[in-house]
Amino acid sequence: MDMQWFLDRDAFAGLLGIRLLEAGPGYAKTAMDLTDQLKNGAGIAHGGAVFTLADLAFAVAANSHGKLSLAVAASISYVKAGKGKTLFAEAREVSLGGKMGTYAITITNDAGEAVAAFQGTVYRKDMPYTRETA
Amino acid sequence: MDMQWFLDRDAFAGLLGIRLLEAGPGYAKTAMDLTDQLKNGAGIAHGGAVFTLADLAFAVAANSHGKLSLAVAASISYVKAGKGKTLFAEAREVSLGGKMGTYAITITNDAGEAVAAFQGTVYRKDMPYTRETA
Amino acid sequence: MDMQWFLDRDAFAGLLGIRLLEAGPGYAKTAMDLTDQLKNGAGIAHGGAVFTLADLAFAVAANSHGKLSLAVAASISYVKAGKGKTLFAEAREVSLGGKMGTYAITITNDAGEAVAAFQGTVYRKDMPYTRETA
Amino acid sequence: MDMQWFLDRDAFAGLLGIRLLEAGPGYAKTAMDLTDQLKNGAGIAHGGAVFTLADLAFAVAANSHGKLSLAVAASISYVKAGKGKTLFAEAREVSLGGKMGTYAITITNDAGEAVAAFQGTVYRKDMPYTRETA
Repeated sequence: MDMQWFLDRDAFAGLLGIRLLEAGPGYAKTAMDLTDQLKNGAGIAHGGAVFTLADLAFAVAANSHGKLSLAVAASISYVKAGKGKTLFAEAREVSLGGKMGTYAITITNDAGEAVAAFQGTVYRKDMPYTRETA
Repeated sequence: MDMQWFLDRDAFAGLLGIRLLEAGPGYAKTAMDLTDQLKNGAGIAHGGAVFTLADLAFAVAANSHGKLSLAVAASISYVKAGKGKTLFAEAREVSLGGKMGTYAITITNDAGEAVAAFQGTVYRKDMPYTRETA
Repeated sequence: MDMQWFLDRDAFAGLLGIRLLEAGPGYAKTAMDLTDQLKNGAGIAHGGAVFTLADLAFAVAANSHGKLSLAVAASISYVKAGKGKTLFAEAREVSLGGKMGTYAITITNDAGEAVAAFQGTVYRKDMPYTRETA
Repeated sequence: MDMQWFLDRDAFAGLLGIRLLEAGPGYAKTAMDLTDQLKNGAGIAHGGAVFTLADLAFAVAANSHGKLSLAVAASISYVKAGKGKTLFAEAREVSLGGKMGTYAITITNDAGEAVAAFQGTVYRKDMPYTRETA
């Protein structure tokens, strides 16, 4: 499923170098190379960068159904310092209703170890949102 | 209270142009000009950028006590599209224990309207963290 | 503002002995006596009981505007073991939009110390919800 | 793995009628019959009861390693009204470190549909916690 247009429109994703690896109905996987500018004062992946990587997987998965979906709440648990060459985020749909959708996103490192866990909810507007209408 | 050194060491804060306006024991206020590269495909402040602005206020407030404090969990509710020239985040300490600290952060726009609400918890390591030791 | 009818209809609040102390537009304060049946295996207030006390303050505050408001997401940070005779929860409105509302709730003990911090978001249905319509 | 002693010590779990169906290292499954006293004013499962059901699965999974583990933060997304005869919560370990552990809990109804998603983090004390030491 081609959701690359969604990333192309997202300037902040571009600033962080976030890439879309895969997308499907209610599903998305993103990646981000851990460059120095994405680090905090302790020299590890910044919590905000890790959040954003997950947020993009969340947004692509939620908007994959062609209806404009806006995040209303998200929570993240940081379980391991983000290190290595690349971080990955994989979003899967927990539930999809008419007005709301909920997604669970797992963030991992090169070794496949969990770095963070993210949970988010969107509000689905009655407005089409596709490559053609965006 | 001078916590500017904390921001200076944070490369990702620099990338986003986040500034520290004020800091005190358990308190911090940050600001971020809403440039185009901080926006999402809908042309408003990216959820990840809003989160990061709040995260920095959170981090400065938590580390203001001179002990290395690492975020373990955070949650954010988005209440209004982030627009205008500048966004602000103000962190206050809800509770400070020996091992854990909890903070509430409010994100507002130029007009003083709430854009998001953020709540975060840190784990406080037995390790000094100051301008001198960082 | 009289929101006692809201508590009266809530069987689970009755089971826990949760009382409404005060209510106003976007505001509520609840109390719960810390009986033995509300404790966990460590002999302190159960996390689920503390959550429920806050949830009731949240629900009353959100429904105070006369429109049916359903929780879509909530997060809680536990900052101190819940002990003593009574716990209190105070909800204030962070933001109120047409479809969503966000609330911050602080849970305290007899000594006024913070026990937990709670943040919640409701979806506001286009359905009146008052003493008369409930 | 026998963790029934954990439930037996938990008075609040008893008040709600929460049962432990299964437990293993970092894993637990709980159940709760949806009696009238667990409902809210709308006649559906109370958000606080759903939270508590998940919290127990979370607590058993986290304490299964024999070390006292206390919840520091939790977040829940409600995705469907809780109805039917019984609700279930299944906790799996996202990550286990020396001091912290993170768990994802899914709450479902009789039909296996998701009712809520819960994410929680514990602080692991340097204190044994088993049937013998509790």
